[in-house]
Amino acid sequence: MLKHIEWNGRNLRFLDQTRLPLEEYFIETADYRVVAEAIRKLQLRGAPLIGVSAAYGVCLGAIEALGDSRERFFASLEKVDEELRSTRPTAVNLFWALDRMKRIWQTLQARDEAPQKVVEELLEEAHHIAREDEETNEKIARYGAQLFQDGDRILTHCNAGALACSAWGTALGAITWAFVKEGKRVVVYADETRPLLQGARLTAFELWKNDIPVRVICDNMAGFLMARREIDKVIVGADRVARNGDFANKIGTYTVALLAHYHRIPFYVAAPLSSFDPQSPDGSHIPIEERNPEEVLVFNGRRIAPCEVGAKNPAFDVTPGHLVTAFITERGIIRPPYKEHFESLFAQEGG
Amino acid sequence: MLKHIEWNGRNLRFLDQTRLPLEEYFIETADYRVVAEAIRKLQLRGAPLIGVSAAYGVCLGAIEALGDSRERFFASLEKVDEELRSTRPTAVNLFWALDRMKRIWQTLQARDEAPQKVVEELLEEAHHIAREDEETNEKIARYGAQLFQDGDRILTHCNAGALACSAWGTALGAITWAFVKEGKRVVVYADETRPLLQGARLTAFELWKNDIPVRVICDNMAGFLMARREIDKVIVGADRVARNGDFANKIGTYTVALLAHYHRIPFYVAAPLSSFDPQSPDGSHIPIEERNPEEVLVFNGRRIAPCEVGAKNPAFDVTPGHLVTAFITERGIIRPPYKEHFESLFAQEGG
Repeated sequence: MLKHIEWNGRNLRFLDQTRLPLEEYFIETADYRVVAEAIRKLQLRGAPLIGVSAAYGVCLGAIEALGDSRERFFASLEKVDEELRSTRPTAVNLFWALDRMKRIWQTLQARDEAPQKVVEELLEEAHHIAREDEETNEKIARYGAQLFQDGDRILTHCNAGALACSAWGTALGAITWAFVKEGKRVVVYADETRPLLQGARLTAFELWKNDIPVRVICDNMAGFLMARREIDKVIVGADRVARNGDFANKIGTYTVALLAHYHRIPFYVAAPLSSFDPQSPDGSHIPIEERNPEEVLVFNGRRIAPCEVGAKNPAFDVTPGHLVTAFITERGIIRPPYKEHFESLFAQEGG
Repeated sequence: MLKHIEWNGRNLRFLDQTRLPLEEYFIETADYRVVAEAIRKLQLRGAPLIGVSAAYGVCLGAIEALGDSRERFFASLEKVDEELRSTRPTAVNLFWALDRMKRIWQTLQARDEAPQKVVEELLEEAHHIAREDEETNEKIARYGAQLFQDGDRILTHCNAGALACSAWGTALGAITWAFVKEGKRVVVYADETRPLLQGARLTAFELWKNDIPVRVICDNMAGFLMARREIDKVIVGADRVARNGDFANKIGTYTVALLAHYHRIPFYVAAPLSSFDPQSPDGSHIPIEERNPEEVLVFNGRRIAPCEVGAKNPAFDVTPGHLVTAFITERGIIRPPYKEHFESLFAQEGG
C-alpha cells in the first residue's frame, strides 16, 4: 500500500492528491500553514486523513513556536488550532482530532509543563490518532467485506479508500479486503465524482493498483446501470454522521442513495466512529461547505461554460438515515434503528 | 437567434457544436460524408437537428451522384441513406427524416423521373423538414411556456435548445418563450451533462445569449437542490418516445426524473411528434447507443483516470412514462394516460 502520509522526525511528508493519477508528487513541510492550505485545496482529503493531517499540523505549529516564551507558545498553539479548524467545515474528524490535540496542550498548560514536553506529548497523540486510524481501517475493512459476495458488482462514489485514511480506507477498504484477503471476485463501478473527479482519479487508481476490476462511470450513469440490474450493492464513506443516521458525504451521495433505494439495492456507509458527531441530532445540523464555482466551471485550465455564466458548488450533501441499509464501523455492522443503536454505541464508548 | 445550420444553394453550412462555447466555428461542405461524420461526432446533435441535417445530407449525396448513370445515381442514394442511417441509433428523428427522403426518391425512381428532378424534389423536402421543425419549435415553445410561472426555478438536462433544432428549441424553447415573450422571470439550473457537457457548453451558452439567468451545476447536484426545495420544475427534451410514454434522452435524464418524482416536482418532456416512435411499444425497444469510453476518460485533452482503467459510456437512458408529468408537442400538452392519448394523436396524424 502506498504510504501517502508520513511523519519523518521533523517534517510532514504527504502525497499531493490533486495531481493523481498523472503524477505521484510528494510535499514535505515543517510549516503548519502548508498543511492547512493542503487541506483547503484537497491535496490532503478524506475525512479520516483530514483528522490525521490536522493533528500533525498542530505538532508542526508547536515545534515552530518552541523558541518563544511560554506565554507566546500557547498563544501560538491557539492560533494554529484556529487556522486548522477553519479549513473545512463538514468533515467532523477535523474537529474531533483538533479537540483531542487541544485537550493535551490545555492540560499540560494547566500543569505548567514546559513547551518541549508539550511538543513531545502532542506528537505522541498525533501518532496515536494515525495508528488508531490504521487499526480502525482494518476493522472496518474486515466487517465490511462480510457484506460482499463473490461476483458482486459494487458501486462507490468519491474516494473512501486508503488515500482518504491512513491505511486500507473505509468503503474501499471493505471492497479491497473482500477481494485481496477473501478472494471474492468483485467488480467495481467508480462514479467519477464531479467536480474534482476523486472517483476517476483516486478510487480508480487505488483499485487498479490492487488489481481489482474497476470501470469509471459518469455520475449520471448509475441510474441506468441500476435499472439494468448491473449493480448489486453500493458502499460509500461519510464525512459526518448525525445521531439519527443522517450523514453528509461528497455531493451526489444523496442521489446515489435514492437511486439505490428505488431499485432496492443495499446501500452501505463505512465510517469510523470519529466521523460520528454526537452534537448533530440530525442532518439539518451539518454545515455544508460551498466551494469556489470555478471548480465546476474550469477544467484543466479551460472553461467549460461561457465566461459570464456562474455555477453552484456545494461540496457535500446530506443523505437521510432511512436510505441507509447499514453502517460499518470499527465496532461492527450497525442496522436500523440508528438513533437507538448509535446511543448504545456511544454509551459504551464513553464508559 | 444564431442561424447555426443553413443551406446556401450548393453547400450545407453548420456550426461545429463541439467547439462551443469557446469558438463559433462553422463547417461548410458539399460532402454528405462530412455531414454523416459531423452527426457521429456530435458536431451536429439534438434529435430534431439530426433529422434536418440527415435530410440535407441526402441532398448532398444526390447532387454528388448527378453525373452518374440513372442506375448508379439511385444506387448511390441507397448508399448515402445507409451511411447516414448508421450514424446514431437512438434519436428516431434520424430515421423519420431519412424515411421521408427515401419515400421521395423511391417514388420518383418508380416514376422514371430524371436525377435532376429527384435532386430538386429532395431539396424541397429537406427545406420542408427544416421549416416544419421551425414551426414545430414555436408551437412547442408557446405551449410549454404555459407551464411556467413568474419566479420558477427550472432544471434542465443536456441541451434541447435552438442548437438542437432549427429555431427555438423544444425544452429550452419553452423556457425562452416564457422569459422573452411572456416576461416571466425564471431562473434556470443547467446540468452540465457529462461526459460531453452539452449543458455547460450549449444550454448555458444559449440562455446567456438570451439574458436568461442560468447557473451550471454538476449532474450530481440536482438532488441536493431538490432536497432544499430550490427547484420548482424540470423540463427536458427526448430522443425517442415510445407508445406508452417511456422515452430515451441523454444519459442522466432517468436519474433526474426519479429525483423529481421523489421530491414531487413536475417533470416535463418537450418533443416534436417526429421524436415519437410508433414502432416502439415501450422503452425496452429503444436501442441505446454506447459511445467510446474515451469520451468519459479524457477531459479537455487530459486523462482523468489511470491509463489502464476503462469506462462505460451509454449515451442515453430510458425514463419510464409514469415519471413524466406531461409531454409538450406541437399539438399541445399531453397528460397521462399516454398510451391512449398518443394513440388518438397518431390517429389524427394519419387521418
